This record gives sequence, C-alpha cells and structure tokens, in this order.
Amino acid sequence: MTLLETIRGPRDLKELPEERLAELAEEIRQFLIHAVARTGGHLGPNLGVVELTIALHRVFDSPADRILWDTGHQSYVHKLLTGRQDFSKLRGKGGLSGYPSREESDHDVIENSHASTVLGWADGLAKAGQVRGENNHVVAVIGDGALTGGMAWEALNNIAAGRDRPLIIVVNDNERSYAPTIGGLANHLATLRTTDGYEQFLAWGKRVVQEMPVIGRPLYESLHGAKKGFKDAFAPQGMFEDLGLKYVGPIDGHDTAAVESALRRAARFHGPVLVHCLTEKGRGYRPALEDEADRFHAVGKMDPLTCEPVGPKGPPSWTSVFGDEMVRLGAERDDVVAVTAAMLQPVGLKKFADAYPERVWDVGIAEQHATVSAAGLATGGLHPVVAIYATFLNRAFDQLLMDVALHRCGVTFVLDRAGITGPDGASHHGMWDMSILQVVPGLRIAAPRDAEQLRLQLREAVGVDDAPTVVRFARGSVGPAVPAVDRVGGMDVLYRGEREDVLLVAVGSLAEACTGAAALLAERGIGVTVVDPRWVKPVDEALAPLARRHRMVAVAEDNSRNGGVGSAVERALRDADADMPVRCYGLPERFLPHAERGELLADLGLTPAELAGSIGGVLARLDDRAADDTAPAAVAVRVQGAKGNGKR
Amino acid sequence: MTLLETIRGPRDLKELPEERLAELAEEIRQFLIHAVARTGGHLGPNLGVVELTIALHRVFDSPADRILWDTGHQSYVHKLLTGRQDFSKLRGKGGLSGYPSREESDHDVIENSHASTVLGWADGLAKAGQVRGENNHVVAVIGDGALTGGMAWEALNNIAAGRDRPLIIVVNDNERSYAPTIGGLANHLATLRTTDGYEQFLAWGKRVVQEMPVIGRPLYESLHGAKKGFKDAFAPQGMFEDLGLKYVGPIDGHDTAAVESALRRAARFHGPVLVHCLTEKGRGYRPALEDEADRFHAVGKMDPLTCEPVGPKGPPSWTSVFGDEMVRLGAERDDVVAVTAAMLQPVGLKKFADAYPERVWDVGIAEQHATVSAAGLATGGLHPVVAIYATFLNRAFDQLLMDVALHRCGVTFVLDRAGITGPDGASHHGMWDMSILQVVPGLRIAAPRDAEQLRLQLREAVGVDDAPTVVRFARGSVGPAVPAVDRVGGMDVLYRGEREDVLLVAVGSLAEACTGAAALLAERGIGVTVVDPRWVKPVDEALAPLARRHRMVAVAEDNSRNGGVGSAVERALRDADADMPVRCYGLPERFLPHAERGELLADLGLTPAELAGSIGGVLARLDDRAADDTAPAAVAVRVQGAKGNGKR
Repeated sequence: MTLLETIRGPRDLKELPEERLAELAEEIRQFLIHAVARTGGHLGPNLGVVELTIALHRVFDSPADRILWDTGHQSYVHKLLTGRQDFSKLRGKGGLSGYPSREESDHDVIENSHASTVLGWADGLAKAGQVRGENNHVVAVIGDGALTGGMAWEALNNIAAGRDRPLIIVVNDNERSYAPTIGGLANHLATLRTTDGYEQFLAWGKRVVQEMPVIGRPLYESLHGAKKGFKDAFAPQGMFEDLGLKYVGPIDGHDTAAVESALRRAARFHGPVLVHCLTEKGRGYRPALEDEADRFHAVGKMDPLTCEPVGPKGPPSWTSVFGDEMVRLGAERDDVVAVTAAMLQPVGLKKFADAYPERVWDVGIAEQHATVSAAGLATGGLHPVVAIYATFLNRAFDQLLMDVALHRCGVTFVLDRAGITGPDGASHHGMWDMSILQVVPGLRIAAPRDAEQLRLQLREAVGVDDAPTVVRFARGSVGPAVPAVDRVGGMDVLYRGEREDVLLVAVGSLAEACTGAAALLAERGIGVTVVDPRWVKPVDEALAPLARRHRMVAVAEDNSRNGGVGSAVERALRDADADMPVRCYGLPERFLPHAERGELLADLGLTPAELAGSIGGVLARLDDRAADDTAPAAVAVRVQGAKGNGKR
Repeated sequence: MTLLETIRGPRDLKELPEERLAELAEEIRQFLIHAVARTGGHLGPNLGVVELTIALHRVFDSPADRILWDTGHQSYVHKLLTGRQDFSKLRGKGGLSGYPSREESDHDVIENSHASTVLGWADGLAKAGQVRGENNHVVAVIGDGALTGGMAWEALNNIAAGRDRPLIIVVNDNERSYAPTIGGLANHLATLRTTDGYEQFLAWGKRVVQEMPVIGRPLYESLHGAKKGFKDAFAPQGMFEDLGLKYVGPIDGHDTAAVESALRRAARFHGPVLVHCLTEKGRGYRPALEDEADRFHAVGKMDPLTCEPVGPKGPPSWTSVFGDEMVRLGAERDDVVAVTAAMLQPVGLKKFADAYPERVWDVGIAEQHATVSAAGLATGGLHPVVAIYATFLNRAFDQLLMDVALHRCGVTFVLDRAGITGPDGASHHGMWDMSILQVVPGLRIAAPRDAEQLRLQLREAVGVDDAPTVVRFARGSVGPAVPAVDRVGGMDVLYRGEREDVLLVAVGSLAEACTGAAALLAERGIGVTVVDPRWVKPVDEALAPLARRHRMVAVAEDNSRNGGVGSAVERALRDADADMPVRCYGLPERFLPHAERGELLADLGLTPAELAGSIGGVLARLDDRAADDTAPAAVAVRVQGAKGNGKR
C-alpha cells in the first residue's frame, strides 16, 4: 500500500507526521503523471499545487471550512486527498470529472470551470457566514492568470470593503494562466515576486517619482538613500493593500511548512487576507517544465516517458484549419488583426502571431475586454477577429450586443469548441451561442460543415465590415468534405431524395449525420432534401419557399433546442405564413455531463439512425391525422403546395 | 445672443479668451438646469463636468482626437459645445438622445450607456492608431463609480501593458456612481483625494506595517519620523502606478485652467496616463447638492426653483410595489437578503435597506459580482434577491448560467425596466431577457401582469430554493388590476370569447392590450381566449391541450420576437405534436430609439387595435387556404380538435 493510498480523507492527512509530507508529495506527482498520461487531462496546473493542496487540507477542516478552487482544473490533488483516487476513467463517461463536482464529494463547492469566479463565491459565502453567525473559514484559491478577469477585480473591491469579514485568498502565482499572464497586474506581481523585481521596481519608482510634478523632486530627495524604506513601502503590500487587503507573502508554494504557517497566520486574522504563494506549473516533471508554450497545461493520452501521443493521428482539427487560413488572410489584408483571451495556442492563433506579432493581442482572461476593445479596433479602421471558445463568449454577451452590434462594428467572432465538446463537461459545452446570439440585431452566424466551408465562410465573415459576424465550429478533428449537389439561394443542397417529403436543415458539423439520415429515410420511401444554410442567421430568404414544397421541416443543430436555429427557422416560416409541421433536433434544456463527443451525440439522438427514426415517426403521425379529419372540432389547415403564394 | 449661443463647435471654444470661461460655465449650468427641468434627464452628472468638458474641447481636437464618454449620461455639456443646443425634445421622440449618438454628431463615438466600457474602447482605438501609424489622441472620461466594474479593470490591465501607446484616462471622481461609490477602490481613491485622506491612510498604513510579519517592524522604524516620504510614497501614485500607469493628480475639476494644464501635460506623455479630476456632482445647483441620495442624478420634469414634479402624480410604480413587498418578506424570513449593483434606490431596495441594513449589499457597478456572490450567498444558506435593470442582466449571463443555475442555487433575480423603457433609448430597453434566459436549465421566469401578481409571484419566486427564478416587470406606473376569470393549470384566464378561435397568450404588462384586442375581435365575431401564463418559463403543461381547442395561437410579449416566449410556446406545441398556426407579437430584431414607452409600443403594433387587426388577418388567410385546398401538391394537415390526442 502506498502512502497516498492510506490517505482516505483530510483527517488522515492531518495525522501524517510532517517529515513524511515530502514522500507523499512525490507519490502524488508520480500518480498524476501516470494517471493523466493514460486518460488525458490537466497536468501542469496540478503538478504545481501539490504542496499547496496538502497544506490547505492540513490547516483547514473541509468541508466545514470551504476550500474553493477557481476554474477547478487544478483540483486533482484535492480529489486525491478527499477520497477520490480512482482516476482510471478521468473525464470519461461515468468517470471522475476533471473539475470539482458536488455529486462526487462534499468537499467540492464550485463546479463552474470558467475562470475568475472564486472570489465572488467566497465573498458571498463569507457574507452568508456573517449573517448566520457562523465561524467557518472561507478559503479561495485563485491563479495569477485569473486575476486578470474583471470579476476578480469586482470581487476584490467588495471583499476589501468587508474589513470585518474573515476570508482568505490564496493567490497561486505561477506567472501563467494557460500562457504567461499578461498586463499591468502581471508586471506588478513580478515586482512582488522576486528581489530582482523589487530592484527593477525601485528603479522605475525612482524614475517616476522624479518625473512627478511638484512633489516629485522633494519626494525623491527625501527617499534617496533610504532604499529599503522606499522599496518596501512600495513593493510587498502593493496594490492589494491599497485596496485594503492584508497581504502575506510571497511564500514558496512548494515549502509545505511555510505555506502551512502562512495559512495559519491568515486564519487568525479577522478580515480579508491575501496569501501570495509562488508555485511552478509542471513542477517535478521535466517535459512539462521544458514546454515553454503552456507547461503541459492540458495533455491528451500520451506516453509518460516520451510524451508521444498515444493512438492514431487524426485528420487536422477545425482549429488548425482556421489558424492556417488566418495566416493567409493576414498576408492579404493588413487591416486584419486578432484578439485572444489568454488562449493564443488553443484557439489556433499561434501561427498568425508568429507571422504578424504586431497585429495580435492577448488580453488575459478577459472576454469582456476582448470584445469591447475589438469594437474600438474596428472603429479605428481595422477588422478584428476575436477567437474564443464558444462557452466563454457568454462572458461578453452584453459587450457583443451593446458595443459591437449597436455600433455596427465589423468584428468577426470565431467560436471554437462550439456544441458538444466532451471531456470538459457541463461548463465547456458550447451549446448556447446560436440561441443567445439570435437576438443580436444585424449579427450574422456561419456554421461551416467542413474544412473547405470553414475557409470560405471565414473569408466571407471577414469581408463584412458593418456588422458583427460569427463563425462557429466544433472541437476536434474536422470530418470529411460534404459536397453540395445544388444551391438554393445562399444554401447548399447536400442531398435530394426522390420526393419532397422532408426538408432537413443541417447545421454545421451535423451535415454528415443529416445526409446519413436522409439515406436511411430513402430506404423507407421517404424523400428528404438536406440543405446546409451555411449562414444560419439571418435565415435565408429562399428557405420558406423551399420548405413549402415539402410536407414538413426538420432542423438539426449542435446547440440548445431553446431558441436556436430551429426557432429561427420556425419564425421565418410563420412570418411567411407557411404554417407547416416543424421539428427541431438539438440539445435538451439541461447541463450535459462529460464524455466523448460521439457518446454524447449518440445519447442525445443526433445520429443518422435516431434522426431518421424520429422524422419517420412524425410523418407517420401526420398521415394518421390527415386520415383522421372527422373529429368534430377539427379545423382544416392547408400547407401551400408548390404554387405557394403565402403572402396575400 | 448668449455667450453659449456663439459656441458652434470646439473651434469657437478654443478662440474664447480664458477670462470668459467662467461666464460660459455659468451659462451652461443655467441652461442645463432649465432645459433638463423641462424634459427630465440626467442633471447632477452634467452639472459636475462643465469645466472638465470645456477643458477637454480646448485642449484636444475632436473629432480627430477621440473624446470618449463612459456611460454617456454626462455628455450634455459635450453636446452643447459641439453644435447641439436644441434640448427642447431631449430624450423624446425625434429629439436629442440623452447619450452620445453618432447619428447626431461626428464628435460622438460610444453610444452604449452601460457603464465601464470606455477604457476598453480606448484601448482598442489606441491599438488601432498604433497599427495604422496615426497620432491622434484617445481620451477616455470615466467616473470613479464605473471603475468598480470589472471591465474597467480588464482594460486598465491591458492599457498598462501598452507602455508605448499614448492614451489619456480622465477619472471624473465625484465619489459617486448613482449612489456613493463603494468598495476598496473607493477607499483608495479617498486616500488619494484629500489631505484628510492622506492622514487617515498614513495612520492605517502605519498600523498595517506594524502588523506585518518579518519586515513590518524594521520598515516601520525606518519610516517613523519620515512622515512625508511615507505618505507620498504610498498615496498619490497608489495602485494605478502599481499597474504601470502614469498618474497625474488630484486636480480640481472645476478649475478649467488647472484641468487644461494637466491635460496638456498628459498629452505630451508617450504612454498611458491617468488624470485624476475631483468634481462635484450637482455643482452650482443647491437642490442637487443638498440631495444626499443621488445629487439629482436623473430627474423627471420639474419646476427648477421648487423642484416639485410637474404634471399629475401617477399610480405607484412597479418598483415601489416590489420594494414594499420586499420589506414584508424580510420581516417574515430572516434568510431573505438583497443585492444591488450601485442602484439601491432606483430598483426599490431603499426601504429594505433601512429595515435590514445587515441584509443588503451594494456591490458597485458589478453585475457579474452581484450574481456570483449571490450564488455564494445561496450556497451559504440564504435566499438572495438580486434586483437589477433588465438590460444590465446581460452583463451577468454567464454567471447566472454557470454559477447560479448549474449549481441549482435559489437566487431570485428581479428585473426592473424590462421591455420597452422609453427615453433612455437603445441600450436601456430591457428587451432581451426572456430570450436569452430560455436556454438556462431549470430557470423559472415570472412576468406579473399587475401589482397583485407582482406581489404574489415575488413570493412564489422566493419560495424556490433549488433553482434560479426571475421576476420581470416594466418601467413606470403599474397599470390597473387585470382580474382572472378562470384558471387552467397554472395559467390565469383573463378573457373568454364566445368561441374558441384564438388562444392569445398575454405576457406580463401586455395583459391589458390583449384583453382589449380580444374585445375588438369579439365585435368581428372572432372568439379569443386570453391567458396569462404567469410563469412564462417553463411553458405550462396545460397550454398545449388548451391550444388544441383553438384554430390558432398568438403570443404577445414585450421582448424580442427572437427566441422569446413565443418561441418557447411553439416548442411546447410541437413537442406535443400540436402542429397549428402560431403568431408571435413582440419587439423586432433591431435597436429601438428613445421615445415614450407608449409611443414605441404603438409604433411596434403592440396595441389592442393592431393586435386585433393582425390576428384577424391571419385567421382570414387561414380560411382562404382552407378553401383553397385543391392546389396540386398540397398536403392536408389537420390540427387536432377538442378530442385532441396528439401523443400516439
């Protein structure tokens, strides 16, 4: 039995003699490296918080004390120490979540793996404790990268106002989010972090002081020669104490005893405290440490020794198709620029950044700023492409609506990981975008079905300079090309059945499933026309006339059924007085778990067989009803036929 | 001709001798007081920026230089100085907008009147200037209140990173947003603001330093007796310089010469500069200065001398009905708490705050934090009511979805100013909520139709402890009670016609218009059943069976037609295999201008006569089609009659 296996919960950890903690930490690292190599998952961040997590669970009494993890992908060690050591199906169907999960454990509180939320949660929990007269600790762990998010600032501002409300903020400072942390804050943390930093900060501070009008010169004089006083007055407290937060640090986050001591001190303070821990992402695993891009932030299945991917190499990803086309666009148009929110590489902008470094900005984990600054970039005469995961666009909905769309700015949003994503679970499925974006006046949404369409539609989007455009695509490998057999209006016809029974509108990557369903229905004598609208918003004007030639319309989309493309199609039909049966296939109104994308699509009926079965069933019921038109109060309603002139 | 009338643009202002500026400022104040008293509008903020705006237009060359106003309600002086002096129809149909408007003037850039966006815009414009090699100035004016918003932080962090990018931030510090600014930042600004503040800060700083581990004592010793050095090292630069922003200030914002001088200095600096101006909201108008609640932030039509409202006093507002009921709820349940984002009084929480000061939190202009901290409050055992304007909830969509709904937190969102609001124009209409919230799993939305329903439904909402609830209502006076004549499922039947031709679903305050339409249709022999679903999400299970008894369904809502209640009703019908004509009446997919709510509703066809006319027209076309069923490719589709057993 390993030492780790004897730790069944925080109590066992507390009873472990201090001198065995290093051994435990080493076991945990080996466990993580081998377990995550087998399943894929977040590796670098977890290797960085081994000692920190041990210290947290030794000092505090979870779950009575609330230990809160921002973003949550650094909770693997926490899982191991709270009774969850079966990582064999990590992030797989039925296995452990890659994030905290209240279903798994009482020790977990926050499941949302969008960054920068933890301080808000902590503020709320601390306020609740105050109102209810409870004394349990609230401890929030947040990375330096997540501090670039505006929510963290809003929370800090409020936490600082509650001087009598105990709350411990642990800043896990590894100088990175996914990529190195950016911005003024990062520079400031650097000054807090190292002696070198203090020195640089001191030099800069002196320069600034000298440049200051009126008081600068006498101030400089009075400080000259008092180096230590000046330095320390400026640096270690810094802006956090300016806000009114007690600051403890910096602490070596890999020295368990030092972290424990700092946390115990913080726990005795009757107000908000910030404990600044310095950690190393990828700690203890050379390949991670040597990876400058992201320190093995998240890895696929791999050989833990060679770090070679396990399994066959798939076709190119949607992301790489986008990334390559962006480089070509950048060469053709010098007004095309790119914006990323701390995800240069994951969204495919690395090549563009290498080619045009002065035309790309990483704004930090700050989707709001990515979007508003893009409105400014567009108003300033450029065409920004904001590349972002679909689920994170929810953070910038107001800004897209009010800053970009209201001002008719030509900004292109490229939504990667749209629809079902898979192993990252509920908060990473990009299943809301085509619903909430429907309300945005003037916005156009492209849902390319294959690589060629992605290239084409990206170009079309970047060609629109007086309205926002969205190009959305799925996670993972792009499927085979789905050729068009015809075009109607701006829509590609992908399949034409023998008869015109069903018009099936196939959105994006569901094109293949839809043509498959059409082929299955053809075997049953049902004729299906499959169209890819290409631009799903606005609905193509040619759709209603085409629909009228059919008995029913079906829409399949990799997006919430509520208010998505299906609803838009229905609206277009009824606005054209085309009252005909419509059925919408998409994602249900519930949060979806983690599993492979294919598994989830199958569970949700978005496969050729399920689609064909359901559509066939609707047609059969329509036939029944048509035959059953003797019901007393029935009212005949006719769908216009081919001559359909619905507008009278 | 007044002096003000001779100023036709910034050029005239620049040519004005300095000694006449005070006279101009006085004229502008008198103009504002009398003009805004006539129309209603934002008064206090504009009285505070008279000299600041004069200085800005004397130093910079708008529109070549970009002068950007955050939130925009303090742009009246800017309008007066850029050729817009006809305030007679301010905020009225066809009159000047209460915010910047690019249609009105090339001097206007940002129309979005949601707060905290200006720094993001400025960052984008400065980056665009850098890429395009342009040298025009970018000047962003932001209030201290708006700095509490996370977007401002995200932008500051990015602006600070662009040390070689000129950009001028003018902080218009009047210690208030709507109400006094809150939080750690406000405390910090206070330290920057006054000598008194410096002294307090010094005392606090010394205390903190003494409490600091390890370095505290020697640091204190070294600083003891060096009061000035310590004070100045800490205070004037403060956290802004920590981020890497050059700080100039504090400047008396009512001393035009001082502001001009500071701005000229800032304009010469080749990097980001923050100019800290102290101003007084309501300056020069005693009634405003004496109003501690909000310094006449925004006023209705009034007598400028007595400040008495002009016109008849209307019935109570939706807001006050909510506010009174909250006090009763607070008395009954000590776990009911309230959260506001810098709008305690406008959202009706003042009485609750007076009664239960320890159970209400103003989080600043920080809707994200309001929402996430509410998730924490709920998880901590309380039931938070987050009261907010409907349009501002867009800022917290991700947090509502991921933090509140995913965690099944019992949080009640009370959306005031939902639907058409009126004089505040495009960015204040609350017309998106019932669309975007449709995707949120488990969320329930109440749209009360009158005061009694608001009280009832608020109670029902606060009774739900395992899911988010929303209660949304309009701006202004609540209409007369609309009694129910029957109930079906959870829905109130408001009107029953002689026959069952049309089922008209009336959402919230449109109940009266819908019963009016039903009465008009009755005159034409058309029978309408009007139901108020009360809870519009989820759709009541009794709706589809009831719908089947009618020939068509119509839905009227004060919300975007895209994906709103109408779409939800359609989805519920088709999921029940009820394929029948549906028509949705709501707000079109465009940004709506400023005008009175009634004027806009009439323009958009949401009146009894227009609804009746449209519904009658649809029925006539359906009859035509029923008679015209000989078309060659026509397919008979029957709507189930009274016996309707759609599920087979």
